[in-house]
Amino acid sequence: MNSSQNAAEWFVTYGLQIFEIVGILAFALSGLIEAARKKLDLVGMAIVTGLASFGGGTLRDILLDRRPFFWVEHQEWIWVILIMCALALLFMRARHLEPTERSMQWPDALGLGIFAASGTQIAITAGMPAIIAVVMGVITPVFGGVLRDVVVNQIPRAFNDHQPYAVIAFAGGWLIVLMNALGWPAIWAVSVGAFIMIALRISAIVFSWRLPTWRV
Amino acid sequence: MNSSQNAAEWFVTYGLQIFEIVGILAFALSGLIEAARKKLDLVGMAIVTGLASFGGGTLRDILLDRRPFFWVEHQEWIWVILIMCALALLFMRARHLEPTERSMQWPDALGLGIFAASGTQIAITAGMPAIIAVVMGVITPVFGGVLRDVVVNQIPRAFNDHQPYAVIAFAGGWLIVLMNALGWPAIWAVSVGAFIMIALRISAIVFSWRLPTWRV
Amino acid sequence: MNSSQNAAEWFVTYGLQIFEIVGILAFALSGLIEAARKKLDLVGMAIVTGLASFGGGTLRDILLDRRPFFWVEHQEWIWVILIMCALALLFMRARHLEPTERSMQWPDALGLGIFAASGTQIAITAGMPAIIAVVMGVITPVFGGVLRDVVVNQIPRAFNDHQPYAVIAFAGGWLIVLMNALGWPAIWAVSVGAFIMIALRISAIVFSWRLPTWRV
Repeated sequence: MNSSQNAAEWFVTYGLQIFEIVGILAFALSGLIEAARKKLDLVGMAIVTGLASFGGGTLRDILLDRRPFFWVEHQEWIWVILIMCALALLFMRARHLEPTERSMQWPDALGLGIFAASGTQIAITAGMPAIIAVVMGVITPVFGGVLRDVVVNQIPRAFNDHQPYAVIAFAGGWLIVLMNALGWPAIWAVSVGAFIMIALRISAIVFSWRLPTWRV
Repeated sequence: MNSSQNAAEWFVTYGLQIFEIVGILAFALSGLIEAARKKLDLVGMAIVTGLASFGGGTLRDILLDRRPFFWVEHQEWIWVILIMCALALLFMRARHLEPTERSMQWPDALGLGIFAASGTQIAITAGMPAIIAVVMGVITPVFGGVLRDVVVNQIPRAFNDHQPYAVIAFAGGWLIVLMNALGWPAIWAVSVGAFIMIALRISAIVFSWRLPTWRV
Repeated sequence: MNSSQNAAEWFVTYGLQIFEIVGILAFALSGLIEAARKKLDLVGMAIVTGLASFGGGTLRDILLDRRPFFWVEHQEWIWVILIMCALALLFMRARHLEPTERSMQWPDALGLGIFAASGTQIAITAGMPAIIAVVMGVITPVFGGVLRDVVVNQIPRAFNDHQPYAVIAFAGGWLIVLMNALGWPAIWAVSVGAFIMIALRISAIVFSWRLPTWRV
């Protein structure tokens, strides 16, 4: 067993979970920042942060008629979110918003990779056809942000920022479909898929890739 | 059997139902008023009024995968809402909106208490863990208003009015969880919980309690 | 067998399907146009177009707890929508929006008739009471447009354009309920109901019928 195999196994065993935690925290912080910008109170903060964190996965599970939701199985996350809101209320100030948001891009890439990969795999395992699985893989990381923006009366950033984000989830989804078709075990398909999507997303940020512009 | 026992029994037998009716009417009127403010037509009025009345409970039932919805079991309410909209179209004028809204605060407190209490209890009965039951108890009375505001392109009042409303549902939910843990029958947990939440909400209005402010 | 019978049979066998295709394309184009107006990118275009096409039926199926969704059973439509978005990105320009939207009114009437009729019938077949079936018949063609508008931060046109649209679905729904009560086969109830609603909608456009105005 060489060291690259060791690294791969470590990633499958612990890395995915760590990435998931980091990803959820990044999604949650995007909700907190939006709530702060809109000057919401504690209730609005908690709801918008919750939607940003778990809205996408919950919508996917409603569409797939799948229970329990992630946040029902992992109730501790509800406490994490409530505590984050309380801490933000105490310590977060306007001058923190912009830098927090900018530094959030990196952990957010982990969330994109993990949730797109697991969302696609969950739909494949539920017996969905390939294109539906890919769509579910896009909905999972993207719709939390969509719901977060829609409830505070903002056109979702995902709809007009011309950044390759949902598009990476879409392409990565097909990769996971392919790996499943080749008979790879689900955990490897998810790990490799997530890893590649994270790499693509980070490249997109570093090299400022843009989607083609609509010339209306 | 003394007279306070009689009063308690009367409340459990009839009071809850009367409170429920008054609460739904108050929620419906909040939808009607919003529709009037936004100058919606008959269709918009009916949809916004329906969302305000039953959106929260419907969302809870979708999340819990529970059927039939309240408005499917009690279809007569759909007629009530349609008739309210027709009457409003005929008789409601701009000068009525502000006074109606102000006087709605009181019956709305009944809706908060009843729906938070029954929402929490329904989730407990469905086998949900405590924190999830409490969240469902918040969603039931709060998300009707959230949906009402979101569809007409307004940041939900529940998110930024700094009033103790969802917070009362949250605190009251834990009380109902406690009463269930102590082995109280569900009907008593709901009654006592609803009663206390209504009292808290009325106190909040009378004494102008406010949530801590976000100092962004 | 006379020629009007032949025409009726042709309509039931092929017409309904053709109308359905035309209707979905019209709904999809309404999403594309809205996306173009809001200058969304490819991702926003695809999501708004998808919501406009299938949002209403999907919401109906979630409420009825019914699977699979239309777009899961007919995955080819997802490709149609993605290709439409790509073509629009390449060829659609600002000067096309207004004329496209105006000419869309006619095929859109087919969508209204077909989806209101099939939505009502699906709910009746699922054992729903009459008023609920009628509400589902309204939700099916109307809520795609509602979701399309809400996600791009616009008060839904269905709520304030004073056009008889949802109201036609409501009236037509009762007709379908009646035909079912008279023991007509479902396919005939849907066909006749759809036909009458389409005729009503086209009359409403031609003669500029308006809903009564709210005199706030």
